[in-house]
Amino acid sequence: MPILHQMHMSGNCYKARLCAHQAGVPLVLKDYGLHDGSTRTPAFLALNPNGRVPLLELEDGRFLPESGAILFHLAQGTALLPESAWDQTQMLQWMFFEQYSHEPYIAVARFWLHFATPEALAAKQHLVPEWHAKGNAALAVMESHLLGHDWFAGNRYSIADIALYGYTHSAAEGGFDLGAYPAVGAWLKRVAAMPNHIDLDTRW
Amino acid sequence: MPILHQMHMSGNCYKARLCAHQAGVPLVLKDYGLHDGSTRTPAFLALNPNGRVPLLELEDGRFLPESGAILFHLAQGTALLPESAWDQTQMLQWMFFEQYSHEPYIAVARFWLHFATPEALAAKQHLVPEWHAKGNAALAVMESHLLGHDWFAGNRYSIADIALYGYTHSAAEGGFDLGAYPAVGAWLKRVAAMPNHIDLDTRW
Repeated sequence: MPILHQMHMSGNCYKARLCAHQAGVPLVLKDYGLHDGSTRTPAFLALNPNGRVPLLELEDGRFLPESGAILFHLAQGTALLPESAWDQTQMLQWMFFEQYSHEPYIAVARFWLHFATPEALAAKQHLVPEWHAKGNAALAVMESHLLGHDWFAGNRYSIADIALYGYTHSAAEGGFDLGAYPAVGAWLKRVAAMPNHIDLDTRW
Repeated sequence: MPILHQMHMSGNCYKARLCAHQAGVPLVLKDYGLHDGSTRTPAFLALNPNGRVPLLELEDGRFLPESGAILFHLAQGTALLPESAWDQTQMLQWMFFEQYSHEPYIAVARFWLHFATPEALAAKQHLVPEWHAKGNAALAVMESHLLGHDWFAGNRYSIADIALYGYTHSAAEGGFDLGAYPAVGAWLKRVAAMPNHIDLDTRW
């Protein structure tokens, strides 16, 4: 079976688990600690020079980093990957939006406010207002799309929805008030109601 | 013809022009100012709620933001887009790497050190060491790949190379010393020697 090198509480790793579960791909989970530097060791850097999880290890020994690329790989041949070039283009548009305009604020705020020690947070506290401003801007962009669409690409649930769900559903842990975004809230419920959905805590 | 809403000096916009030129897609260029807030007006936000360029306006009136998605669209049916799912996966791996681990440091350092006013830079000066550390880490990841490969995906020139070329070739404007990365330097020359290459200043 493929091995997912991961930190279980990471939204980027959760995306890979959720996609694999819905694509019917069993995974072995290999865990790394949030605070122990275990993805910066020479042994890990030999697997991924960028020193990050998730990292997917295929059965033939190939390694694939980057959550968006892992989703694209796991979804091949399933309904999670739209078929037309235009639908795939829109899917990628939202996946790039998530990694550039959403994750660096919403995931980062969650990490520091929810998982870091008070001492570590103190050194970052001055950045919280910027994270909240830019994270709320990203949520507003999602809200404007979802006022007119049920899903992000191709009029159906796809890996674009999985990519955006990963950190949006846990945004409250970063100090965001999702009550201000009712269309986002309704979309979160639609995603959670999809067949074979698993939550972030689930191990399988 | 499609219209590229753009800022000419932006590396993200240059990627779209370079890809379109090599894909044989003529574009009309519609320019926005770097410092005039013209991508944050209500009229522009109605086109792209995320308030960013590049934004591609197709002939049928559809709008496509996100440079990575624009490259994926423009490259359809050309040799710039690898055919196999695995090659496309690796291409996307590097395009996500570029937007998450490379652009936020190398492009941002270039913007503030090369294009901002001294007064504006003064307010950001304390961030320069972090931009340089993380940008150099990204260049080192590229170097490690290029020591064993001519290109980033599929053993050929693709939109992954275009995406990484956009800000790597101008990294010196952000204070980076590319002399420390000889494999990156050799790759930059290979990219610049490809048929129908255009440089950042070219208008067409």
